[in-house]
Amino acid sequence: MEEEQKTRITIDIYGQTYTIIGTDSSAHVRQVATLVDDRMRELSARNTYLDTTKVAVLTAVNSVHDYLKLQTEKELLEEELKKLKG
Amino acid sequence: MEEEQKTRITIDIYGQTYTIIGTDSSAHVRQVATLVDDRMRELSARNTYLDTTKVAVLTAVNSVHDYLKLQTEKELLEEELKKLKG
Repeated sequence: MEEEQKTRITIDIYGQTYTIIGTDSSAHVRQVATLVDDRMRELSARNTYLDTTKVAVLTAVNSVHDYLKLQTEKELLEEELKKLKG
Repeated sequence: MEEEQKTRITIDIYGQTYTIIGTDSSAHVRQVATLVDDRMRELSARNTYLDTTKVAVLTAVNSVHDYLKLQTEKELLEEELKKLKG
């Protein structure tokens, strides 16, 4: 989701409006926005003392953590494929 | 990175301190924190009008976007593996 591209999509996350400019489909951007909103609300419900910035930063932390975990899983699959292909 | 577990790791992201409680290694948690901090600073440098909450939310948006993209790539690898294994 780059800022330099063409379509403009307006989304709402945690009570604030964001304009996403990029080449991704509206459906994809809305799916991402819904996931982030859900994760922020879950995190906030479990940690009621956190302000919005901290909720957002910790949501980013959890998302990057999940990304790295998935990356490791993908690398294992790639190794397996490489072996199978000889 | 769950809140209910055992080790406590203190990290700094974008000028604020967070305590992460979980079972992940300190090295992993620090790697995640550095990535989030880097991403927030890059996004902020490109969009100087954004406040910290918006920088954090958009960093979460970008991270979830990357996660979904990687998930699709992983699913393609899994299909390829399935075919190769018969």
